[in-house]
Amino acid sequence: MAPVKKGILERLNAGEVVIGDGGFVFALEKRGYVKAGPWTPEAAAEHPEAVRQLHREFLRAGSNVMQTFTFYASDDKLENRGNKLTFTGAQINEAACDLAREVANEGNALVAGGVSQTPSYLSCKSDTEVKAIFKKQLDVFVKKDVDFLIAEYFEHVEEAVWAVEVLKETGKPVAASLCIGPEGDMHGVSPGECAVRLVKAGAQIVGVNCHFDPLTCVKAVKMMKEAVEKAGLKAHYMVQPLAYHTPDCNCQGFIDLPEFPFGLEPRILTRWDMHKYAREAYNAGIRYIGGCCGFEPYHIRAVAEELAAERGTMPPGSEKHGMWGAGLEMHTKPWVRARARRDYWENLKPASGRPHCASLSVPDGWGVTKGHADLVQQKEATTKDQLKQLFDRSKTQ
Amino acid sequence: MAPVKKGILERLNAGEVVIGDGGFVFALEKRGYVKAGPWTPEAAAEHPEAVRQLHREFLRAGSNVMQTFTFYASDDKLENRGNKLTFTGAQINEAACDLAREVANEGNALVAGGVSQTPSYLSCKSDTEVKAIFKKQLDVFVKKDVDFLIAEYFEHVEEAVWAVEVLKETGKPVAASLCIGPEGDMHGVSPGECAVRLVKAGAQIVGVNCHFDPLTCVKAVKMMKEAVEKAGLKAHYMVQPLAYHTPDCNCQGFIDLPEFPFGLEPRILTRWDMHKYAREAYNAGIRYIGGCCGFEPYHIRAVAEELAAERGTMPPGSEKHGMWGAGLEMHTKPWVRARARRDYWENLKPASGRPHCASLSVPDGWGVTKGHADLVQQKEATTKDQLKQLFDRSKTQ
Amino acid sequence: MAPVKKGILERLNAGEVVIGDGGFVFALEKRGYVKAGPWTPEAAAEHPEAVRQLHREFLRAGSNVMQTFTFYASDDKLENRGNKLTFTGAQINEAACDLAREVANEGNALVAGGVSQTPSYLSCKSDTEVKAIFKKQLDVFVKKDVDFLIAEYFEHVEEAVWAVEVLKETGKPVAASLCIGPEGDMHGVSPGECAVRLVKAGAQIVGVNCHFDPLTCVKAVKMMKEAVEKAGLKAHYMVQPLAYHTPDCNCQGFIDLPEFPFGLEPRILTRWDMHKYAREAYNAGIRYIGGCCGFEPYHIRAVAEELAAERGTMPPGSEKHGMWGAGLEMHTKPWVRARARRDYWENLKPASGRPHCASLSVPDGWGVTKGHADLVQQKEATTKDQLKQLFDRSKTQ
Amino acid sequence: MAPVKKGILERLNAGEVVIGDGGFVFALEKRGYVKAGPWTPEAAAEHPEAVRQLHREFLRAGSNVMQTFTFYASDDKLENRGNKLTFTGAQINEAACDLAREVANEGNALVAGGVSQTPSYLSCKSDTEVKAIFKKQLDVFVKKDVDFLIAEYFEHVEEAVWAVEVLKETGKPVAASLCIGPEGDMHGVSPGECAVRLVKAGAQIVGVNCHFDPLTCVKAVKMMKEAVEKAGLKAHYMVQPLAYHTPDCNCQGFIDLPEFPFGLEPRILTRWDMHKYAREAYNAGIRYIGGCCGFEPYHIRAVAEELAAERGTMPPGSEKHGMWGAGLEMHTKPWVRARARRDYWENLKPASGRPHCASLSVPDGWGVTKGHADLVQQKEATTKDQLKQLFDRSKTQ
Repeated sequence: MAPVKKGILERLNAGEVVIGDGGFVFALEKRGYVKAGPWTPEAAAEHPEAVRQLHREFLRAGSNVMQTFTFYASDDKLENRGNKLTFTGAQINEAACDLAREVANEGNALVAGGVSQTPSYLSCKSDTEVKAIFKKQLDVFVKKDVDFLIAEYFEHVEEAVWAVEVLKETGKPVAASLCIGPEGDMHGVSPGECAVRLVKAGAQIVGVNCHFDPLTCVKAVKMMKEAVEKAGLKAHYMVQPLAYHTPDCNCQGFIDLPEFPFGLEPRILTRWDMHKYAREAYNAGIRYIGGCCGFEPYHIRAVAEELAAERGTMPPGSEKHGMWGAGLEMHTKPWVRARARRDYWENLKPASGRPHCASLSVPDGWGVTKGHADLVQQKEATTKDQLKQLFDRSKTQ
Repeated sequence: MAPVKKGILERLNAGEVVIGDGGFVFALEKRGYVKAGPWTPEAAAEHPEAVRQLHREFLRAGSNVMQTFTFYASDDKLENRGNKLTFTGAQINEAACDLAREVANEGNALVAGGVSQTPSYLSCKSDTEVKAIFKKQLDVFVKKDVDFLIAEYFEHVEEAVWAVEVLKETGKPVAASLCIGPEGDMHGVSPGECAVRLVKAGAQIVGVNCHFDPLTCVKAVKMMKEAVEKAGLKAHYMVQPLAYHTPDCNCQGFIDLPEFPFGLEPRILTRWDMHKYAREAYNAGIRYIGGCCGFEPYHIRAVAEELAAERGTMPPGSEKHGMWGAGLEMHTKPWVRARARRDYWENLKPASGRPHCASLSVPDGWGVTKGHADLVQQKEATTKDQLKQLFDRSKTQ
Repeated sequence: MAPVKKGILERLNAGEVVIGDGGFVFALEKRGYVKAGPWTPEAAAEHPEAVRQLHREFLRAGSNVMQTFTFYASDDKLENRGNKLTFTGAQINEAACDLAREVANEGNALVAGGVSQTPSYLSCKSDTEVKAIFKKQLDVFVKKDVDFLIAEYFEHVEEAVWAVEVLKETGKPVAASLCIGPEGDMHGVSPGECAVRLVKAGAQIVGVNCHFDPLTCVKAVKMMKEAVEKAGLKAHYMVQPLAYHTPDCNCQGFIDLPEFPFGLEPRILTRWDMHKYAREAYNAGIRYIGGCCGFEPYHIRAVAEELAAERGTMPPGSEKHGMWGAGLEMHTKPWVRARARRDYWENLKPASGRPHCASLSVPDGWGVTKGHADLVQQKEATTKDQLKQLFDRSKTQ
Repeated sequence: MAPVKKGILERLNAGEVVIGDGGFVFALEKRGYVKAGPWTPEAAAEHPEAVRQLHREFLRAGSNVMQTFTFYASDDKLENRGNKLTFTGAQINEAACDLAREVANEGNALVAGGVSQTPSYLSCKSDTEVKAIFKKQLDVFVKKDVDFLIAEYFEHVEEAVWAVEVLKETGKPVAASLCIGPEGDMHGVSPGECAVRLVKAGAQIVGVNCHFDPLTCVKAVKMMKEAVEKAGLKAHYMVQPLAYHTPDCNCQGFIDLPEFPFGLEPRILTRWDMHKYAREAYNAGIRYIGGCCGFEPYHIRAVAEELAAERGTMPPGSEKHGMWGAGLEMHTKPWVRARARRDYWENLKPASGRPHCASLSVPDGWGVTKGHADLVQQKEATTKDQLKQLFDRSKTQ
């Protein structure tokens, strides 16, 4: 029988580095199991072998947390805008818990159950209604006895606080992560103020995920840490950014980039960018360090390799990876063997191979968020007329 | 019992489009199962579930060919430069055949056994010695009864001709694919002349793979086709390019780019680039259309979607993909729904998010190839002294 | 006899737009009359026909101010670091006044005498010593009866205040312009605080010039205006930016860019960029709008054309310029005639033709300024040993 | 009395390097004396002081040839598309000759009279008609006794041959320069074939000017030289390229770039690019080396400085220029003094400061040239209706 694992708070309290996993929806979209647009996680029930394999790859890359693949698995989201699924929310959430647990048991990883923002909130439903939605997902997490809970990918701190309040009732450790950058949430609440509210609501771990590139996210979490400490509160910090460079984003993050979601390739971070990220995050005092959309297993492995000394271990997947390009010593071509050194890769400024493309984009800026009629969601598919209106409008923005 | 499938030549003779698969070594490197540098395929024996999963993803994406994951699985390559493996070449080749067959049986796909260029040739071994190496791999392919054979990733047409000569002895259909561009092979033999030699040696299908981006590869295959036809010969044509933009490469292709192999991210093609590629290849009269390094399942799916009318079918994986971004009709944000249209994605010029990086690189140009002492291979690991010499030399190039 | 012209304050008090001139040292460097490095204005005495011609071009472009070509014409600067000249400071200053007056008389322009920062200040000389240097230049300006005075191109507000104090003694209107951006002066004093100090010292016009691109400079002047108004003071505002894009600069501006001064070409603004600049500056309430390094006559003409309605006049040079590309209606090629329209040029994103160059640079950041030993100036030429030390040091920054 | 100068052929026969001048129409457009669109040289009569000054600057920069500012000064061009001038063609041509002679006499320069392509040819007029137009300009050149003649800026070799035939009748040395690149003239005649025809028609000097960047032009002249030598003929070679980078141009050159003519700034060559150009041209055996559109005096000075050893002299303007940045030794800032060295500037890859712009453009490609109805010229101004048709058409290209 396996020894009892240390819990998430025990690890963080002991000063350990906890490595998160990467981005399931984007990785599985490229593998053919998630549909871009609705981004719902029915693959947990529909194609479990694909989800299990991805969990295993992240475990192998060094992840200490298997997040249940339950992103957007609330009933109101699963049925939004004509997204017809053959599985119920409960089936998907249960299957996701089983897969995460199965792989977590194969290594030193914990299972985290996750909830995220809801169409109901965007449609201005009450806190009672929104909380009821979280509660339904939560019942599965409790039944399946996940190790801790994460409220993640919230654009509005108000909804995140509601989520934390519901999650706290389980007695399990609660992390809260917003998809915001240094400019704050969609109603202009600063990262620092957001963090204070989340900690006061009971979150033991706070941070940001998605929407911005690693260095931008680390900056936002630093602002959180400063405010929490200034308020005399205590918390642990987490960061799970994009694996895309986003220097040109405004407050809404990569959603607004013209390249979202099907033209982001040139922005993908290299493994060497990840070394810098891991070091910056560590130096900022963040100890839960993972990834979100765009993070592939090799990105997480790079984080784990950068922090190998601090963690006292190399990830299993490094058996197939020479540190800082050392594997190239085995290449047949001498000029490629000459690249088997740290300073080469650390200083490389990779070209895009796209001379007709610029380096920065002008993001969309429709300036609407919760409270605006345009964001009321609907169960029915978007009609042709609705689409035509959107196309026309996009040309005048 | 399943109906007998049509063979590769039957399909091509009937004018059908055959969709190849994508790049195993690069995809599995990112997933943690292949080591960059040696690039050997021991995962077939070591981590079969990972290889099986990738086969399935390509099948789901529309591939009609499962290439055995036997790239660089010749004994001399497996042991080159200190690459110590716990599996024999035969074990790897057999495991790879079994995996390819297992997944091919799940759909309308054939199994192709592949051999590629050898360190022995680079080290100036004789045709007898080099052919003996191919023969060993071939024995497995015959025993496992693959559907056809591919000699692929050859930089020198001379070695490719030797390979074709060995492969022909099996009586199975033979394809031959060089990793060259419009400038020809490493000794300056033009694509047209290369193709003529390969067809005369017995290859029924000729083309190029790897080393260059799709449009460059299509251009090279067009040169092959013109020369073959001008010589009064007959052949089918195949193309399996990189999924990286390489406008700045010289004759050796992406190996020479400073970004190879760990900084290629900004060059990755989008799915929309793949639509253009598939159309160009089809219009050029190429009917075996696949991918090589960098091709992920969604890239192959894009090829299959572009040619859906010609093939009379959509790939299974398209159940999770709206054509030309149609899935975005289900997105919560109105300005993202406004991107659910073909002209948006067809005209997008994606930004890199990297304002400190240029769009083109200056490739290495050491100007050495087979026949040059620098390219003699060794079984032992590269020593520190050898590395130091290489580093010093790279600074003066 | 010519009618008496309105003075600078009369014009600004009446709400008129005053258009400044462009950058003499950079323009004359390219024409062969100024040496990059010392940047001293001996051409006023040495090659008066070249200076006169440039004055005329700016007058023709719409300039209402002829600044005497006396930039860096203080005795301590003229003799700094081995710069041996055959003209005295007085000779240069007098010749410059005569040239400016001669051309100003040919149109509706005023003559402004200018002083700028001194090596003596950088070498930590006292206010008495520094003020004596300004006084010497001023004696010439008084003798030649210039219309008003400008203390411009100051990096440290302290020295600028000293200059204003000296200039005020003449009784002539005084403008003060710092070469700073939104981050403030070299000792970290904010633009707003700088402006308040200068107004309190007696400057009637305040603003910024040089070191940053137009939109950055406008932003800094807006900060000045806000602070001056908040302090209950009154002033007019001026802006004379670079004609180079500098989004990547830190507080020291374009001096720190690796491209300064001989590789700035790709950053040169187009005439259409100038239209945007002129409009932004006008909307910000700035009424003295000109240019500095990089501004050629056609840049000033573009400013004058954008503000033609507000000024009630087109510049003389527009006889050779169709607004918004209208001159192209006379081009021989039909596809070029098709570019004869405003929206074409307003939306153009011009390519660099340099695919191996990035779009942004990493500026030098030695972090030294007045008060640091490295900035003490010397009369003798820089020695080889001193240069070697600098080269070595630049590699480790 | 001045000693008699050596003629152009004497110099070239002696193996001397002859440095041409730069681009008058573009430089004077920026100074306010030439109208972009018609590009006619009435400034020679209208603003002689501006033209004289530019001649002087090029002389000072090292030019050995003062080309009369008679570009497009044929009567049919002067009156094309509503271009109303107050000077006759004869007046302009005479004034231009006088200015060129006046400045040539101030140094070691010759006067070259130039004719260029005509609207009449584009409108399919006969050789008799076109030759009559050249003859009119030529009468002035003979009367003013220029030192030699240049037929330059011809897109069609046929018209250039006609020009050479007329010019030869004067008995003066004749140079012929086409505005073509390696792809040849607008009817697809290769550079080599063009050169052979021109030499056979009597040109003693052949080459290319305008339309492409320096290295592209040098490449085209090399092709000319090879073909002339292969044909057993003898000639001297000249090159006068753009000072704009044009790697993205098709056969028509920079006219087709979307940036032509008002957005070319980011493409301007640095002085260091000019050093490379001068060396390449010299190494290719070209001895008449100058510039065309975009060349400012400092560009010509850089050519003269690169070839100072070969010419045995530095240009007068170098009194204001330290070789390879040496003037920076006199800069006040130590980090700028650290740039006073050749390797710094030789290796610099200058950034554009324009992260929203790409590095390459897609040129227009209307595919029409002489013989196509669209290119028939007219005396009347382009009408609004004609413009509207062009705008509509440009959107569908």
